[in-house]
Amino acid sequence: MASKYWEDFSVGDAVTTQSITITEAHLVNWAGLTMDFYPLHMDEEYAKKTIFGGRVAHGPLSFAMSIGLVYMTGFYGDSILAWLGVENMKIPAPVRIGDSIRVIARVSEKRETRHADRGVMKFSWDVRNQRDETVMSLDYVLMMYRRPVAVPGSA
Amino acid sequence: MASKYWEDFSVGDAVTTQSITITEAHLVNWAGLTMDFYPLHMDEEYAKKTIFGGRVAHGPLSFAMSIGLVYMTGFYGDSILAWLGVENMKIPAPVRIGDSIRVIARVSEKRETRHADRGVMKFSWDVRNQRDETVMSLDYVLMMYRRPVAVPGSA
Amino acid sequence: MASKYWEDFSVGDAVTTQSITITEAHLVNWAGLTMDFYPLHMDEEYAKKTIFGGRVAHGPLSFAMSIGLVYMTGFYGDSILAWLGVENMKIPAPVRIGDSIRVIARVSEKRETRHADRGVMKFSWDVRNQRDETVMSLDYVLMMYRRPVAVPGSA
Amino acid sequence: MASKYWEDFSVGDAVTTQSITITEAHLVNWAGLTMDFYPLHMDEEYAKKTIFGGRVAHGPLSFAMSIGLVYMTGFYGDSILAWLGVENMKIPAPVRIGDSIRVIARVSEKRETRHADRGVMKFSWDVRNQRDETVMSLDYVLMMYRRPVAVPGSA
Amino acid sequence: MASKYWEDFSVGDAVTTQSITITEAHLVNWAGLTMDFYPLHMDEEYAKKTIFGGRVAHGPLSFAMSIGLVYMTGFYGDSILAWLGVENMKIPAPVRIGDSIRVIARVSEKRETRHADRGVMKFSWDVRNQRDETVMSLDYVLMMYRRPVAVPGSA
Amino acid sequence: MASKYWEDFSVGDAVTTQSITITEAHLVNWAGLTMDFYPLHMDEEYAKKTIFGGRVAHGPLSFAMSIGLVYMTGFYGDSILAWLGVENMKIPAPVRIGDSIRVIARVSEKRETRHADRGVMKFSWDVRNQRDETVMSLDYVLMMYRRPVAVPGSA
Repeated sequence: MASKYWEDFSVGDAVTTQSITITEAHLVNWAGLTMDFYPLHMDEEYAKKTIFGGRVAHGPLSFAMSIGLVYMTGFYGDSILAWLGVENMKIPAPVRIGDSIRVIARVSEKRETRHADRGVMKFSWDVRNQRDETVMSLDYVLMMYRRPVAVPGSA
Repeated sequence: MASKYWEDFSVGDAVTTQSITITEAHLVNWAGLTMDFYPLHMDEEYAKKTIFGGRVAHGPLSFAMSIGLVYMTGFYGDSILAWLGVENMKIPAPVRIGDSIRVIARVSEKRETRHADRGVMKFSWDVRNQRDETVMSLDYVLMMYRRPVAVPGSA
Repeated sequence: MASKYWEDFSVGDAVTTQSITITEAHLVNWAGLTMDFYPLHMDEEYAKKTIFGGRVAHGPLSFAMSIGLVYMTGFYGDSILAWLGVENMKIPAPVRIGDSIRVIARVSEKRETRHADRGVMKFSWDVRNQRDETVMSLDYVLMMYRRPVAVPGSA
Repeated sequence: MASKYWEDFSVGDAVTTQSITITEAHLVNWAGLTMDFYPLHMDEEYAKKTIFGGRVAHGPLSFAMSIGLVYMTGFYGDSILAWLGVENMKIPAPVRIGDSIRVIARVSEKRETRHADRGVMKFSWDVRNQRDETVMSLDYVLMMYRRPVAVPGSA
Repeated sequence: MASKYWEDFSVGDAVTTQSITITEAHLVNWAGLTMDFYPLHMDEEYAKKTIFGGRVAHGPLSFAMSIGLVYMTGFYGDSILAWLGVENMKIPAPVRIGDSIRVIARVSEKRETRHADRGVMKFSWDVRNQRDETVMSLDYVLMMYRRPVAVPGSA
Repeated sequence: MASKYWEDFSVGDAVTTQSITITEAHLVNWAGLTMDFYPLHMDEEYAKKTIFGGRVAHGPLSFAMSIGLVYMTGFYGDSILAWLGVENMKIPAPVRIGDSIRVIARVSEKRETRHADRGVMKFSWDVRNQRDETVMSLDYVLMMYRRPVAVPGSA
């Protein structure tokens, strides 16, 4: 894994992830792990009577898979210290079983902290399906390691 | 599942979930499902050299399991139409393998929408471990069904 | 989780669970966990030559998911001490991939034990599919906690 | 898989399965699949205050894994038509995380049915842990295929 | 599990396994466990533009499931000490979602080692689908236990 | 995912993957998916009497996770057409629960095929644990896409 620090990112840097197909197995495994068996996601009979007309993926599942898709690009390297949250989430369209999603992640904001060894990085995420429709957008905020400063006179 | 509508919740209503122990299996299954194999969560050798001193649960895992814990209480009934996002997330302490977490969820805000059949509901979540320390807090926002209005003169 | 005791149940009390769709992923995950790869459940080629005409869910899978469906209703609260078994199981129809099942559970019998702190509770379960056909029926027997008796003169 | 029929079993025939260690992962995967997150199995903090002193495996998990252990021996061959239920279940001791279980299964009863192509077979199961203690015993009842009868004069 | 040793196998001995249907859930679970999310296996949009015309199972998945299929026949008994590798693998046709595979395994070579308690056994595997087409062939090599030699004069 | 072709690799190119800790959950999930419940991997009681002194990871599990670890580095980009097999596998030491493994993969051989659009690539893999001991080595062979040739006068 590439060594990467807060200093190595510039506002505007962007990456597009691979795409992945959301399957029934994802929904079943997700519900089992998170205990969220809400019938809109797990009961076809219930779901087909809603405005969605059938089961849709849990929103947090699309969100969590987006985290992994961006991780796998290597874009972060090993710069992450902690997750600080998610802001401005919008879910303009449902993700259905059989849809394929990918993420376009862009550095939207950097800021220093009162700790010299840590910086905050905000990414703007645009999650799109196979028809290039945005299914989720949000700001993803991370605390990152800063590059250690060489001390003059030290080894 | 109990029929419940936006009208059935009042600001201040609260529920405390059961507790669940976070295991190594949760981390492994989570990473596999979401593709987030960041070494802080998956590589003990890497993690023990960080400030955490060992593997910690993915933040989004604690978040997603909290969703399920609240779901299982039956607090929502079948009132949910869609997830609108999460705000003001704070993660004051890590969740480690072997920790047990529970959620205290409280209705913090209600508002009408321009659609007569839908209302917004904001919940304040306090996720605590077995030592009663807050490990995550956030505002969880849902779109809910409103109770159908009886039309005078109709059936 | 609500505090509930053996004393809080009366013969005739009943609950209907949410419904859940049985998927191919349930069968695959079940076989992997329980080591039951019998071809009627796991091999479409074999199964389509049987009287069922295709793969059917393992009977114990429908049974085990019924346990969870009832659990999630909160009907038991935290009253359960131990599982005592299952009686009079009947499986009048197969559960196929894509079927959705729910459980109607009714208290059918209560009895005291020689221990003042425990009571036996028998539930009658009717597991139905989306066409309202019974796919499994059985008596489910639990040992429950009894309500602690206040001792006069104690705190 | 060996062709085997109801005729091929005699009362007293027995098989001992391999042994398998019950892990935390089994409990987590089981709960996720069956939706049974009862805290005795899933919350160490709750469980250690019970008479068990810690998390124990779900009874139906030991039962279902026993089904698979017997299946894997090849004892049944492809003789099974349907599961008819379980009788006389007793759970004399809990199965804890780290215990290893195996099954001794013995044919205890055979009977014909009104259908010439099917017979009922009852097995007596004794599930034991690594200290040779019985942790579960039950009668397992199956409907089996009977050997097709050669018709005189046919090919 | 039957006690079996290197001495109990002869060149030419063979076994045919049961068949199992490869499902979308197998691919999703495999990718999650092994971290191999290559889009040919996980992204229908990508896969349908390749020469395969759609997602195909990971080759190592077919291989690993073949290991289990042979294991379940009981052919090896408890003779295995260690896996020594795989040789001459050929993959003449893809395994698609919905295909059912089985293995014909045949002892092709035996040889002694310099350790009197161990022998090498080579198996030739032919993995076939439901149309009886070979989808994988390989030589599977195992180190096996040899039968302990009775020492004259000892107990 | 970066566009990459057979032409983009040179003998000697190498990559080192992140490390991952092998857990009990990996073994349980692996066995369930592949049906390989050999007691050396799944039964602590059996395994502790072998020369290994306890359960060890399935060799094919370490192999398959190595595939994923290399995939996640992005080293291949989208160059892979098909897996051609594995050669010269050696397993000098067992992988135990709690060990962390990483892979050093190096291009060891390239060769053209009779198809102008495909080339063969051989990688030498060295899988090491947290004590820098080699636990598996092998040659991994892939069929890759070649870079499309611009045709003079076209486009």
